[in-house]
Amino acid sequence: MKTARVAEPAMPSEFDLIQRFFTRPAGAASAVLGVGDDAALLQVNPGQLLAVSSDMLVAGRHFLPDADPYSLGHKTLAVNLSDLAAMGATPRWATLALALPEVNEAWLAAFSRGFFDLADRFSVSLVGGDTTRGPLNLCVTILGETDARALRRDAAQIGDDIWVSGDLGGAALGLAHLQGQITLNADAAAACLTRLHRPEPRVALGLALAQLPRVAAIDISDGLLADLGHILERSNVGAEIELTSVPSHSALLALLPGSALARRCLLAGGDDYELCFCAPVDDAASVLAAGAVAGVSVHRIGRIGSVAGLRVIGQDGRQLQIQERGFDHFAN
Amino acid sequence: MKTARVAEPAMPSEFDLIQRFFTRPAGAASAVLGVGDDAALLQVNPGQLLAVSSDMLVAGRHFLPDADPYSLGHKTLAVNLSDLAAMGATPRWATLALALPEVNEAWLAAFSRGFFDLADRFSVSLVGGDTTRGPLNLCVTILGETDARALRRDAAQIGDDIWVSGDLGGAALGLAHLQGQITLNADAAAACLTRLHRPEPRVALGLALAQLPRVAAIDISDGLLADLGHILERSNVGAEIELTSVPSHSALLALLPGSALARRCLLAGGDDYELCFCAPVDDAASVLAAGAVAGVSVHRIGRIGSVAGLRVIGQDGRQLQIQERGFDHFAN
Repeated sequence: MKTARVAEPAMPSEFDLIQRFFTRPAGAASAVLGVGDDAALLQVNPGQLLAVSSDMLVAGRHFLPDADPYSLGHKTLAVNLSDLAAMGATPRWATLALALPEVNEAWLAAFSRGFFDLADRFSVSLVGGDTTRGPLNLCVTILGETDARALRRDAAQIGDDIWVSGDLGGAALGLAHLQGQITLNADAAAACLTRLHRPEPRVALGLALAQLPRVAAIDISDGLLADLGHILERSNVGAEIELTSVPSHSALLALLPGSALARRCLLAGGDDYELCFCAPVDDAASVLAAGAVAGVSVHRIGRIGSVAGLRVIGQDGRQLQIQERGFDHFAN
Repeated sequence: MKTARVAEPAMPSEFDLIQRFFTRPAGAASAVLGVGDDAALLQVNPGQLLAVSSDMLVAGRHFLPDADPYSLGHKTLAVNLSDLAAMGATPRWATLALALPEVNEAWLAAFSRGFFDLADRFSVSLVGGDTTRGPLNLCVTILGETDARALRRDAAQIGDDIWVSGDLGGAALGLAHLQGQITLNADAAAACLTRLHRPEPRVALGLALAQLPRVAAIDISDGLLADLGHILERSNVGAEIELTSVPSHSALLALLPGSALARRCLLAGGDDYELCFCAPVDDAASVLAAGAVAGVSVHRIGRIGSVAGLRVIGQDGRQLQIQERGFDHFAN
């Protein structure tokens, strides 16, 4: 707005901020032209498809307003890397647009460290973005490369095994602890809060799975039931999973099977950013090998079927009545 | 946040919204895989560089909270198209992430119409994005293609002519009218508010200029002095412009040269989204031809020099003392 357009001398300009916190030599290294022009110029490798995804994180909705800025920088990029992992794509570049209520240099320094520490691990270059004043909002667009064998949600077929990487429920249990719904011991709390604040995108697993003939995949950001549900919907199939086969975070084991909270964290807990994927039964050995290559455990939790819908079978062999729903970004 | 993760039945889910308002056949047409998976898959044409830019628009900062949603949809994409125009790139794809305080279907319908009407004019496909609840925030990442002759900010050289497309100050005068700083007659107000709310990205001009041997360009989003200043900084040169040569919106002519407001709108007014560019004197005829091809007037306003800084020469031939500053996204 025009009335907002007289700069305060004490306030660093947008360009100072970008220069100081978000311009890195690395940004230019893999880009023909990086931060500082109207657009970045990038060279996509011949024969590769460009994979593009955008995620917006809002304070009070996707993270607590007082979240540690280093972890927030990590998570802001991690959730986007996780989308590329679920496509079996190689991350290459990112843009970052952020609205900040104020210029807090310590906050920005820690946030950018968290962002770049993860970016460096995956050789991702920050090539552009935008900074403006406003309610705290973080929007990353991630760019990667893949060949035609990308892991699509619509590739599941009847008879496929359903797999999950790592274990589930830790992030949701950590949030329940933060919100006082449960009190974990120090070790369990630390482990769960690490899952919540520093998710590990399964990029290596996605790349290994993309070498298989046919894999359908999604990352578990909104909860196993909700995200597997998207695969079923896009593939026009149904599924049955066994509760006891779903790998649960160690902190949940003490609570299961009795605790409704624990079961909710396991089946409907968001923020784990593990992969849920479907592959032909005959490729089970290759899936296990892919997990070994990527250094992450993979667990078979069920089977794709022709009957529409998603059924969860309990320990007693009977179908559970599931009320739990995944995180909907428009839920309240 | 976990407490926010129980869906209200009455509330359409994120996926319903994306499906209903932001999924178009066009989205899939030019994309290998469009909206609906973890990432879009795009085929960049061989030999082309990918041009990428992100812009975030925040209510109360970049637009009035009660802005007409159709115009806002137009402007949200237009400001991003303008970045590609300033690179001489061909727009191809966009992602849209939006945080909305509430689900207002009429607002979303009008916003998406404004967005897609402009996208269709430039054959831009919306290939992905994100929707979430939060303070109104609109973040677009625009993707285009260009060859190595992109229009960079750092390409200006001593002796170059400095040019501006169209005319300046109309958008800023419209905002001044909205804010009661001045009262325009109905025709002038309508013309200026169209400039403010429905900026026309100069994509065709950028593409035509990219055919010239060497052009440095930027789009005027923050005001002529501020944006030309970025070219000077990146090119490590200075410049002198003549106030009387700067093309002013017709509604300003009645006010100039007496009005400080009018001069501020002309030199420091944002939101015009015209192009400011520098080219060798010998290419003046080619620049004029490029304007003719693009159907937009181009005006020579000054000359790049070796003396650092930006000087504005007034009608009397004397240097103006310029206090006006461009819009800084961190100004208050």
